Amino acid sequence: MSHEFSESEKAAFYRAVFERRDCRRFRPEPIPEPTLARLLEAAHHAPSVGFMQPWDFILIRDSQIREKIHEAFLRANAEAQKLFEGERRRQYTTFKLEGIRESPLNICVTCQRDRFGPVILGKTCQPEMDLYSTVCAVQNLWLAARVEGIGVGWVSIVRADELSAILRLPSQVVPVAYLCLGYVKEFATEPELQTAGWLPRLTLKEVVRFEGWESSFQQDWQRFCQELENR
Amino acid sequence: MSHEFSESEKAAFYRAVFERRDCRRFRPEPIPEPTLARLLEAAHHAPSVGFMQPWDFILIRDSQIREKIHEAFLRANAEAQKLFEGERRRQYTTFKLEGIRESPLNICVTCQRDRFGPVILGKTCQPEMDLYSTVCAVQNLWLAARVEGIGVGWVSIVRADELSAILRLPSQVVPVAYLCLGYVKEFATEPELQTAGWLPRLTLKEVVRFEGWESSFQQDWQRFCQELENR
Repeated sequence: MSHEFSESEKAAFYRAVFERRDCRRFRPEPIPEPTLARLLEAAHHAPSVGFMQPWDFILIRDSQIREKIHEAFLRANAEAQKLFEGERRRQYTTFKLEGIRESPLNICVTCQRDRFGPVILGKTCQPEMDLYSTVCAVQNLWLAARVEGIGVGWVSIVRADELSAILRLPSQVVPVAYLCLGYVKEFATEPELQTAGWLPRLTLKEVVRFEGWESSFQQDWQRFCQELENR
Repeated sequence: MSHEFSESEKAAFYRAVFERRDCRRFRPEPIPEPTLARLLEAAHHAPSVGFMQPWDFILIRDSQIREKIHEAFLRANAEAQKLFEGERRRQYTTFKLEGIRESPLNICVTCQRDRFGPVILGKTCQPEMDLYSTVCAVQNLWLAARVEGIGVGWVSIVRADELSAILRLPSQVVPVAYLCLGYVKEFATEPELQTAGWLPRLTLKEVVRFEGWESSFQQDWQRFCQELENR
């Protein structure tokens, strides 16, 4: 079997990457069971340090639980707003930052830090690697959802200790991502905060460096710099 | 324009997810500049909290720098081995855990924690969100590499403070992932640690929960549980 991807397969993959969005406006139709299973299977096939697969996917539809989580969001968001001033605060209040109650499904992706015991290959000097593995699973799920026409929004304006209490997580289990999922009317052509002028899209050139933070090797990378210029 | 993906586009995306591997054995051919630019563009289009795009991609080819990083790996790995005992330690020593010198390119993906100032939308009560955004960029890059026929290996057995010193990172910049990239002879059909029997693949059922950690709602999820059984 060839390990190569065809040009059309490559294009399909990049389409998912570039058309994925953080969504906060959902239609109410439920996600069919086979589709949901495919999303979770994709997430579960993320890389994980030492193959520890530290993630769990807590599926949440119950309205009372979601009401509690929404209240936790409101508390955190009230605190968050105070950190912005003047026009920035006014603009902040215009953003829709979650779809906890409107979306047909919420998923809390957690990391069980002691899964398979205290010593994990590859995690011995970077203990945060299990959290990072869990984030890889989130990103797989997010891209798979886009391919299935399902929007995902990551709600980070909620205290982790409140999430843990509401979902009754054991002490060794950390909530990494609280996600809202559902079909959407549209996927915007660019991130909402970019459209709103909240922050600018950086160019690729601005986030690439050579051989170190402050490089003295740039001339060895001239052909690549030219490539970046021409894009 | 339709937002839907065709069945063949979906299949291409899932193929990337399921055939992505952590690679440690590389062929020496360099990665062409346009291909490398596509990988980085995919990474740069990851989601980021408050659209802060906190990542930088430090491209490393210089052999002296890589030699230093390899030495840092050897030190960390000598410490790591001591944490395993008996047969586990013997097996640990048989694993190839990095390809720092053999691969034609290393990339250190960093997170600049104060990019765009101290207050970032969505990061105010979960300060680790910028690190998680950076991991999303890593996962985009990893999947894009698979589509391009390029293997990626994440080296986590190296101390972050040594990486920071070697690459002269400022204090607000954290090394999140140290990656080795290159063409490979093959992509294995399953993770090497699974094949070696180091840890077992969990079933999807084992990592899905309903409405909380210990759920009393499982009966509301019978159709989905049935779906998981039938897979």
